[in-house]
Formats: sequence, C-alpha cells, structure tokens
Amino acid sequence: MVVKVYGPTYASPKRVVVCLIEKEIEFEAVHVDLFKGENKEPEFLKLQPFGSLPVIQDGDYTLYESRAIIRYFAEKYKDQGTDLLGKTIEEKGLVEQWLEVEAHNFHPPLYNLVINVLFAPLMGATSDQKVIEESDKKLEKVLDVYEERLSKSKYLAGDFFSLADLSHLPFGHYLVNQTGRGNLVRERKHVSAWWDDISNRPSWKKVLQLYKYPV
Amino acid sequence: MVVKVYGPTYASPKRVVVCLIEKEIEFEAVHVDLFKGENKEPEFLKLQPFGSLPVIQDGDYTLYESRAIIRYFAEKYKDQGTDLLGKTIEEKGLVEQWLEVEAHNFHPPLYNLVINVLFAPLMGATSDQKVIEESDKKLEKVLDVYEERLSKSKYLAGDFFSLADLSHLPFGHYLVNQTGRGNLVRERKHVSAWWDDISNRPSWKKVLQLYKYPV
Repeated sequence: MVVKVYGPTYASPKRVVVCLIEKEIEFEAVHVDLFKGENKEPEFLKLQPFGSLPVIQDGDYTLYESRAIIRYFAEKYKDQGTDLLGKTIEEKGLVEQWLEVEAHNFHPPLYNLVINVLFAPLMGATSDQKVIEESDKKLEKVLDVYEERLSKSKYLAGDFFSLADLSHLPFGHYLVNQTGRGNLVRERKHVSAWWDDISNRPSWKKVLQLYKYPV
Repeated sequence: MVVKVYGPTYASPKRVVVCLIEKEIEFEAVHVDLFKGENKEPEFLKLQPFGSLPVIQDGDYTLYESRAIIRYFAEKYKDQGTDLLGKTIEEKGLVEQWLEVEAHNFHPPLYNLVINVLFAPLMGATSDQKVIEESDKKLEKVLDVYEERLSKSKYLAGDFFSLADLSHLPFGHYLVNQTGRGNLVRERKHVSAWWDDISNRPSWKKVLQLYKYPV
C-alpha cells in the first residue's frame, strides 16, 4: 500500500515529499486546500487535531508533524535509498542537533519573512515592518553561524547529506527565490555552495516539478 | 568520564537533566550565569555558537539543543534506565510527533507567557498584554487537544512514559506553579492526571531538589 501525503503543494509537506523521494518510497498525494479551509473540516481534524499540514498515512498508521514524519521514514527504511541519519549514534546526534537548529533558529525568522513579505501583500493584509526588520537581523546572525559551520564540513551534521540539510529545502526555496533575499545566501560563500548542492539534488528538483508552490 | 551539563538551573537544560536521571547516567553540572551574560563569552560560543543553553559534553563529544540531546542519550543508552523511545518504529514515530507538538504548539505560547507574566515584571520591563491574551488562547486550544488525546492513552505517545511527556516538565512546571495558570491544567481532567503523574516521578523531584529555578 502506498503512503498517502496530505497537502504536498504547501511548504512543510514538501519536507516529507523530498524525504520520500530520497528514500525511494512510493506515495500518492491527497490535496488539501488551506485557502478553502479544508484543514479545519471535521474529517481532516480527525487525522490532525491542530488542523495543520502535513499528515501521512502509511497503511493504517497516521502521523503528523513534518520533522517527525521524516525521522520515521528515515528510520523505517534505513537501508533503502539515501541514508539520512548518519552511521553512528554521534553522527545521528548531530543530525538531530541541526534539525533542531533548523526548527528553532532558521525557520521562525524565515517564516515571519515569508508571511510578511510574500503572503501579506497577496492577501491584502498589512506587512509588519518591525517584524520584517527583526527577522532579517535574526536570520543574518543564524546564517553567520551556518557559514562558520559549513566552512568546516560539507553539510550541517558532517560530510554527509542528512535530514538536517533536507529540512531546509522548502523554506530555503522561499528565501532564495521569492522574498528578494537571495543575497543573504549568496553573500556567504559556504552557505551559497551548500544551498546549490542541496537544492540541485534530483529529489528536490522532482518535488518542484511535481508540486508547484501555491505562492 | 561523567557527562557535563551546562546551565542546569535554567528550564531547557532541566529537560536534559531529567532525561539523564531517568537513564541512570552520571553527570556533573557546569554553571552558566545568563544574567551575567556568560553565554555570550567567547569560550561558551565555541561550544554553542548561538549562545543558548543547554550544551552537554560526553567525553570529547559536544552537543546542544535540549531535544536533540535527550534523543541522543535515549538512543545511546536504550537498554539502561527507563526506555523513553517506545518499542517499535511506529511507537517511536508517535514519540517524535508529540515531541514536535511540544516544541511547536505547547512551548511557544507558554514561553511567551513565562516571559511576559513572570520575567518582564522582575526585570522592570513592560508586559505585552496582547501577547499574553493571544498566548492564553493558543495554549487553551492546545490543551484541549491534549485532553482529547489523554482521554484515550495514559501518556502522549501511548501507554508508556516517553521523551514526549518528559519534554513538557520544565516549562509545565512554570505553567502550573508560577504563572497563575494552574487552572488551565486543573480544569482538564486527563491533562491534570497526566501532569500529576509525570511531575511526581522521582526523576523530576530530584531535578527540582538539585537545581532550583533562577526564577
């Protein structure tokens, strides 16, 4: 039975889709329209009580939260496709560390930028300039740490591509291509080379080809 | 060689300490005074470039981000002390899911409350009433989902205590005891029973006895 992925046009579910492709796992899409509020309908809330995307179904097993889902598949299919977890417990610890850095340091300011720079004008809402300024500053500091780290190892957790790198793709795409902030990446030599490397993986190109972003 | 834990008086490092006690791992504390800015000193930034707590050193292995550290120890000492990961890949997936829910749904509004209700007045700063109101509303909705979940299983990931429950202890303590919001837990029968269960574990009592919160 193929895995079902809910909402693959949106950014966070793309974290799951790129992982499934790296792991060579068959899947099918179930489309959910956030703009129509389909994520707040009772049937959907039975699967994901917070009304968020993504959700997956693997047979009769349901799981949500994109970074939990990618860990689940990386572990379940450890020996299939790309190994995304590292070979030792110490390597895996660093994968976990950089996954957490992505979630807690990289993502929040970038999410605020995407909302205020990209979505707010499209929805006719007012962009919060103070949030934009603060988020730009935070993101620059975070990317300075990345630059230092990536001057010492090819990928975030070491010299191997892992869930930690992969997890940056969906919102990194917004950063580089759609917020007018590609320079934050391009001004940092090692971050720039790393971004080119991970965003040119066949798996990510396939995601972009299969599921266009809604914005 | 015993594990070194940096900053155990603060809330996030307590996530690590309670895990180490559950796993019966010897450790020693390295105190870091955030109020004196010791986390921004060059020696500390070599260990944790974002200047955050906690950090651990396990021999010559350094790791930061509390939820990465607890995963690392839970896996490294899988067969020692309390099993905190679940027995199957499916159980572990649910542990990961609820760890993510803790990090992304439970923690952010609670953190905002702790900052604005508890810390701001102590530091002579102004509390943001709008943030307090929004955070209260968000946290209530999150705890409604917890109530539904905990009416069906004893712990978040199933009928076993796991990293997912443990991860709620440090800020849950603030919520119940120091923000005047214990009612949010007590008004929800299953959340209340779950909180009593996890906060009465000998490991957590030991943490509170060893390392008093700074506030």
